[in-house]
Amino acid sequence: MSRDERFTKEAAALGYGFDGEIRIGGNYAPLVRDGHHVYVSGQIPRVDDTVVVVGAAGEEVSLAQAQVAAKVCVMRALALLQRSLGSLEQVRAIPRMTVYVRSAPTFTRQSEVGDAASEILLNVFGPAGAHSRTSVGVLQLPKGATVEVDLMASVE
Amino acid sequence: MSRDERFTKEAAALGYGFDGEIRIGGNYAPLVRDGHHVYVSGQIPRVDDTVVVVGAAGEEVSLAQAQVAAKVCVMRALALLQRSLGSLEQVRAIPRMTVYVRSAPTFTRQSEVGDAASEILLNVFGPAGAHSRTSVGVLQLPKGATVEVDLMASVE
Amino acid sequence: MSRDERFTKEAAALGYGFDGEIRIGGNYAPLVRDGHHVYVSGQIPRVDDTVVVVGAAGEEVSLAQAQVAAKVCVMRALALLQRSLGSLEQVRAIPRMTVYVRSAPTFTRQSEVGDAASEILLNVFGPAGAHSRTSVGVLQLPKGATVEVDLMASVE
Repeated sequence: MSRDERFTKEAAALGYGFDGEIRIGGNYAPLVRDGHHVYVSGQIPRVDDTVVVVGAAGEEVSLAQAQVAAKVCVMRALALLQRSLGSLEQVRAIPRMTVYVRSAPTFTRQSEVGDAASEILLNVFGPAGAHSRTSVGVLQLPKGATVEVDLMASVE
Repeated sequence: MSRDERFTKEAAALGYGFDGEIRIGGNYAPLVRDGHHVYVSGQIPRVDDTVVVVGAAGEEVSLAQAQVAAKVCVMRALALLQRSLGSLEQVRAIPRMTVYVRSAPTFTRQSEVGDAASEILLNVFGPAGAHSRTSVGVLQLPKGATVEVDLMASVE
Repeated sequence: MSRDERFTKEAAALGYGFDGEIRIGGNYAPLVRDGHHVYVSGQIPRVDDTVVVVGAAGEEVSLAQAQVAAKVCVMRALALLQRSLGSLEQVRAIPRMTVYVRSAPTFTRQSEVGDAASEILLNVFGPAGAHSRTSVGVLQLPKGATVEVDLMASVE
């Protein structure tokens, strides 16, 4: 199966479509290419016009819901890469990903939330999806989203 | 108008000068060049010795004040680039910017704060100022500042 | 003294060993090499199986304890680089470091915490350890750790 097919399979498993416009929330670029690197802006779990998971993990939002949020964020990032590059086959590596988790004061499972985002990268790219990662717990995120993810891809 | 002239114009519009020493708050470098990339350290809205906007956005600090803070941060980053490179004309692109907004628990307009920083980049660099961006809401920042911005520039 | 010897000296001064397994908390890579760059994942102050400094700086944790935490984080990052590269002599520069400090609401000395991490880089690498840095105060971190540090190294 190609990476693009695996991407489609992950979208179906999540139950969300990523074919619509990938809206961004301000006057910046969804991604910028600089030589062999592509920097993808911070993605919140928005599908079309709706932020599908909102609230603090460990409070209004369960770990499982926060993990869904993390997956939607990274799927948006991959959808942007796919559109920009033509195919996810053009991605050589994902050296860096940062996962910001809107957290309740006592919620300390940010790594488990990040694992859900990492799982998408590994499922879609296989060994080429190995990435470094930082997961932290923040007080708030744009539009009250539960998770925000940014990443940097290395491309052919 | 050159980028350096546009930078001066933005400073005048903000009402702050960036000709003085750009102080940093510790034993690190204000910026580091690595090949064609320049990494600028996190900037708080300090002008000379004073952090000009302090407090949590959405609480003591309004959205408009937080936007001023974001602009001062990015102007400091550009002042550092200008001094190091001789001129902002040497900047090829700004692939990456991260905007940390000290937020009240219910403040979710981090993107609008980031937009003010982005506006400076677009005003000074024009289309070359297109950048990827991540805006998040944090609990605290050094010296109680409202905003901290870091960025990476690609240079000739 | 070689950088590897200075690393060993810093470990002795801290009173912690970094010879054991460097455990990571999820399905990501401890570091990823991409061309001349190595991206090290976010490190918490874990030594073997124990996170040695837990809690919010300015509340349960003093500035001095948070500084120890920051040092352990960066020592872990260097231990990972050393194992991956064979020797810290292979590091050309550390262009970028980010220091996330789990903070009490009124704690604003994130830069002083970051300084402790920076001190390790300067002690081990000398002038080549000059780095850009961003220090921010976050609400929570994985496993309740007081500090998390990530960095990017440029290598031969």
